[in-house]
Amino acid sequence: MPSHRHPVELAKAYRLLNHGPTVLVSAAAGGRRNIMAAAWAMPLDFAPPKVAVVLDKSTWTRELLEDSGEFALQVPTRAQVDLTQALGSSSGRELVERDGADKFETYGLASFAVAETSAPLLEGCAAWLACRLLPEPAIQQRYDLFLGEVVAAWADARVFSKGRWHFEGHDALRTIHHVAGGHFLLDGDAIDARPLPGRT
Amino acid sequence: MPSHRHPVELAKAYRLLNHGPTVLVSAAAGGRRNIMAAAWAMPLDFAPPKVAVVLDKSTWTRELLEDSGEFALQVPTRAQVDLTQALGSSSGRELVERDGADKFETYGLASFAVAETSAPLLEGCAAWLACRLLPEPAIQQRYDLFLGEVVAAWADARVFSKGRWHFEGHDALRTIHHVAGGHFLLDGDAIDARPLPGRT
Repeated sequence: MPSHRHPVELAKAYRLLNHGPTVLVSAAAGGRRNIMAAAWAMPLDFAPPKVAVVLDKSTWTRELLEDSGEFALQVPTRAQVDLTQALGSSSGRELVERDGADKFETYGLASFAVAETSAPLLEGCAAWLACRLLPEPAIQQRYDLFLGEVVAAWADARVFSKGRWHFEGHDALRTIHHVAGGHFLLDGDAIDARPLPGRT
Repeated sequence: MPSHRHPVELAKAYRLLNHGPTVLVSAAAGGRRNIMAAAWAMPLDFAPPKVAVVLDKSTWTRELLEDSGEFALQVPTRAQVDLTQALGSSSGRELVERDGADKFETYGLASFAVAETSAPLLEGCAAWLACRLLPEPAIQQRYDLFLGEVVAAWADARVFSKGRWHFEGHDALRTIHHVAGGHFLLDGDAIDARPLPGRT
């Protein structure tokens, strides 16, 4: 493992998603694997940490996730913005059917495996969360909404440590926030709220 | 209504939340009203637009929302970061019991009413979404997760128009993303993904 990737304690794993970045969702089952972009993901609980993510019925990742009961969220960076858009607008199922090559092969992606999940993890991200599906068939079907418990998490220590993001000096690693149609907002400056004067 | 607040067509309302900002959640019932901060909110569907938001069992806003079946999300700005933190770390119920003044009175907040919801809307935000609760008692109880359909939306046209955020020249109106403990990241630069060379 690259030295920059460090474990994040589970009690602080929600902070990897708390600022609302666009994520990549990966899953694998039966020798197949896929990864897609999702802007609709958020923390759902602190301890144990849980997450929620919306996965359209058409997506192959959803099928693999339902088969395996596992998935990973990863937080892509500014350096991966073109890739993120490509992963969000192409179909792994179609690539495999047409070319016999999945997204990892088609886009030349480096991935790595961890003991905590069957989902492949993409190299170069700012953070990774290995998740166990919390089956809720009714809301999965009705709202395309999937819930998971985070079982392990890691971050690139150059930009996340001690429970805080710190992107200064690492612009290429800033996390990204999709608006629509391949248009993203980057993380900007950090700011600390001050107590309101004269209020309790 | 101030001239800067313009309606957002429902088909594009998801873009007000797609970049994952921290939101304020407001609701009113039986002559009582409250507003709280929530970092865990996201779009859930495009058309009709839906949203998901996590509301702890201890919150008064949740009680008012469950009573009225309605709530509003609003997207606060950099200028409101201290207020957002205060609204997220104080209890409207306790303020009323102790001082007889709710959060709007305690913090001197200007709010406005719209026909589409009973929830009070806070002046000075970058966007507002009036929502109708989609009752899902099991997940409300099990995960503190509330779903809603957006029935009307507005944005400050200085920073959101034609389906895009554009904060240049309006730093005080940049939306904010809570990390933890009153520490926020501001929206930064915009970036457009480019097609990956040689890929389809």
